[in-house]
Amino acid sequence: MTIIKIGGGEQINLESIIKDLINLDDDFIIVHGANALRDELAKKLDYEKQVLVSASGYSSVFSDEEALDIMLMSYSGLRNKRIVEMCQQAGINAIGLTGLDGKLIEGKRNRGIRVKEDGKLRMVRDFSGKPKTINVDLLKLLIDNGYVPILTVPIIDENNFAISSENDDIVALLKHSLNADRVIQLIEAPGFLDDANNPDSVVKNISRTELGKREAQVDGRMKRKMKALIKLFESGSTSVYICDGRIENPITNALNGGGTLIK
Amino acid sequence: MTIIKIGGGEQINLESIIKDLINLDDDFIIVHGANALRDELAKKLDYEKQVLVSASGYSSVFSDEEALDIMLMSYSGLRNKRIVEMCQQAGINAIGLTGLDGKLIEGKRNRGIRVKEDGKLRMVRDFSGKPKTINVDLLKLLIDNGYVPILTVPIIDENNFAISSENDDIVALLKHSLNADRVIQLIEAPGFLDDANNPDSVVKNISRTELGKREAQVDGRMKRKMKALIKLFESGSTSVYICDGRIENPITNALNGGGTLIK
Repeated sequence: MTIIKIGGGEQINLESIIKDLINLDDDFIIVHGANALRDELAKKLDYEKQVLVSASGYSSVFSDEEALDIMLMSYSGLRNKRIVEMCQQAGINAIGLTGLDGKLIEGKRNRGIRVKEDGKLRMVRDFSGKPKTINVDLLKLLIDNGYVPILTVPIIDENNFAISSENDDIVALLKHSLNADRVIQLIEAPGFLDDANNPDSVVKNISRTELGKREAQVDGRMKRKMKALIKLFESGSTSVYICDGRIENPITNALNGGGTLIK
Repeated sequence: MTIIKIGGGEQINLESIIKDLINLDDDFIIVHGANALRDELAKKLDYEKQVLVSASGYSSVFSDEEALDIMLMSYSGLRNKRIVEMCQQAGINAIGLTGLDGKLIEGKRNRGIRVKEDGKLRMVRDFSGKPKTINVDLLKLLIDNGYVPILTVPIIDENNFAISSENDDIVALLKHSLNADRVIQLIEAPGFLDDANNPDSVVKNISRTELGKREAQVDGRMKRKMKALIKLFESGSTSVYICDGRIENPITNALNGGGTLIK
């Protein structure tokens, strides 16, 4: 079982990715983003990102109901179904699903942020959280009957509300739940870069041990990314390919050593 | 098997419909619209409906690629997934699908419209068509495993392109393919009205024969609606309930004779 993670950047070449999937000799599931599309739609709808500053001075994006609506339109609607359409055109019998459908990805809603208003402390909770369980029976039911699941956010929380979640966390949970032995991440870079500003600095191979060392050296978004990668190695043996999702034949390129392989 | 058709008007009370579904003692499938939501989104995105006039003077709405994108966002994304969410909150294990997913609803694309441009005749084809076959195996697979399918447009054409289609045609095809013996249509009126302008003129019972007579007396959109109703009686025995989707307990009301029953 292979999990294909397709980034949501605007340079990602969806058509060449989908066409190249026939060269993958394995069952697979796709998890995709749509952040560029989401941002574009939010802009057109004059939706401004809500940023909250907590009482302790920590600021974070607040996913209100409208943010979820925009996610449903861009991720679950437009992007998910256009990928399903491309798959069907490539002879892949895809079914697009969110975590809400058949409670495919259940999560726990974040507790909230403590904010100060008129001198009083108040907890405010948005619609975001972390995935905790996968409906493996549903995925197997579909796969065993010849369908390819195409997954995206939102996921469903403990009270059956739609919540946003990080795709990295979803991929890690899927990997463990399905005992997938391969994860292919298609991104807007030629691979894992030693120097984020130098596209020629692709690291061809990284070991699980080296990953830990590197994680200790970085911070911010990069640290989160490293932690997400490390998570993929928490159960069973895994090969993680980090590859260019902007080029022709990106899957073939990935499997032939064209990007970064973490083992 | 019961097919629930939920209209896409803005007065439709989705929450009360979904909550009332537990009072339905039968397997069911939902087919829903989202036209009010689609029109609202199109307006926000400054999308103007394309209307083409054919060489023979017949004008029709032209579903271009952007119209399909807006359909994917409003029908397949926002409305479909919010209904799935409401279902999950009501204890119904729903899965939202379009006709693209697993080629659930395959259709034939319309041939196109002959238009005159610079004195020359040219065929232009939009992304619209008619549903022809249902993937009954997929629906049964889901229903037999305890899931409730929530269906919406688009459907998929013979070349695997997303196309728009009339929900009435989809419901009729589903009814025949699944041998459903009940269709409940939830609309923005208290039932089938003898006089379209008088909400007190609900016709309590109509026979299949009377339907034919009435069809001959009307025209325009109403004729299309009557034809669609007649289609529901082309195979097997059927009870069609046309009921108010704006009120509390709309399903209970429908089954207790609150609207129109066609038998």
